[in-house]
Amino acid sequence: MIKIPTSTLKRLPQYLEVLRQLKRAGLKEVSATKISVFADVHPTLVRKDLSFTNLSSSPKSGYKVNELYNAIEKLLNWNDTSASFLVGVGHLGSALLGYQEFAQKGLSIVAGFDNDLKLVNTVVHGVPVYSALDFTSMAIKESIHIGIITVPPEAAQLIADIMVHSGIKAIWNFTPQKIIVPPQIIVEYVDMFASLAVLSRRLAEKE
Amino acid sequence: MIKIPTSTLKRLPQYLEVLRQLKRAGLKEVSATKISVFADVHPTLVRKDLSFTNLSSSPKSGYKVNELYNAIEKLLNWNDTSASFLVGVGHLGSALLGYQEFAQKGLSIVAGFDNDLKLVNTVVHGVPVYSALDFTSMAIKESIHIGIITVPPEAAQLIADIMVHSGIKAIWNFTPQKIIVPPQIIVEYVDMFASLAVLSRRLAEKE
Repeated sequence: MIKIPTSTLKRLPQYLEVLRQLKRAGLKEVSATKISVFADVHPTLVRKDLSFTNLSSSPKSGYKVNELYNAIEKLLNWNDTSASFLVGVGHLGSALLGYQEFAQKGLSIVAGFDNDLKLVNTVVHGVPVYSALDFTSMAIKESIHIGIITVPPEAAQLIADIMVHSGIKAIWNFTPQKIIVPPQIIVEYVDMFASLAVLSRRLAEKE
Repeated sequence: MIKIPTSTLKRLPQYLEVLRQLKRAGLKEVSATKISVFADVHPTLVRKDLSFTNLSSSPKSGYKVNELYNAIEKLLNWNDTSASFLVGVGHLGSALLGYQEFAQKGLSIVAGFDNDLKLVNTVVHGVPVYSALDFTSMAIKESIHIGIITVPPEAAQLIADIMVHSGIKAIWNFTPQKIIVPPQIIVEYVDMFASLAVLSRRLAEKE
């Protein structure tokens, strides 16, 4: 499978969102230029990004909306559903367990884990919560390859170590803590605080 | 106030996290090299980033942990608390209302807004929820400058327009929808789906 650049991958969901809204509005065809305007991405980049779909665009009418939508979904493997485990069922973890959007993006969180006994053996937004001690045995038994970390930052490395030990191949880390894992493990960060840092400083610079 | 590069700003919270853990461990001094190791950032970058604090590092013992912590907090304006309003009290919005970490990072979410009548006039994690129709009058009355968007993507632009009209100067957008606002308005995205796209594709590329 061909390696798509990270910058392209990060823009693909924006195009999907534009296409979803065009579909809802009943449009059948769309040009790269139009996508560029709605996604606020330079037309040259849009064309480069969309070239990974191998779809051809008609000079008159552009891309077929449905075809392009499905092709991008396929590039992201979002047409397929992957099961994942989440560790840390606090405010943020609970919210992710209930976040419907993931299901449409190929991600199913099938279990949560926590070491708080008040949470263990409960069901949060329809997802069962188990003791963190059961993570390894369950991950191996169910062949889970994606782990989501929503624990406090100081516990992130420990959880990452447990995940690697349990056969997890990709870690989605929602803490600002950098984790150190073997090179074959995929790690992605959703670092809210990096984004908050820019927002706070830019606002202070203006005032 | 001097403009700090975005790349530096995004790394500062990582250093804070390292320093917080060193403080807890009782350490008084730290070298840039040590921070570089813990934060997994190249030493040259760490030195460049920390130079914005104007603190001097002793060749023998490095920085004073407390001093450096406070200086970085000040650079980010996280020593000061800014009030903000959040629109969209769904799963993610509710979680953010209850997210204690923000308070330590200078952000206080003082009210939530939604158009779901079941949510209006309730209190979520201690934060009152009002009708979205009351956003403008309340934001102007309370001189709120930060708006957080956690609505479905198709409503993000409308909410952004209302925010700009209500005197909001900085928008923190948690939807993948690009929003178009006047150039003086600061916009920051927390785009989970961009990150999920990279994770999903890299995993598929491996399998």
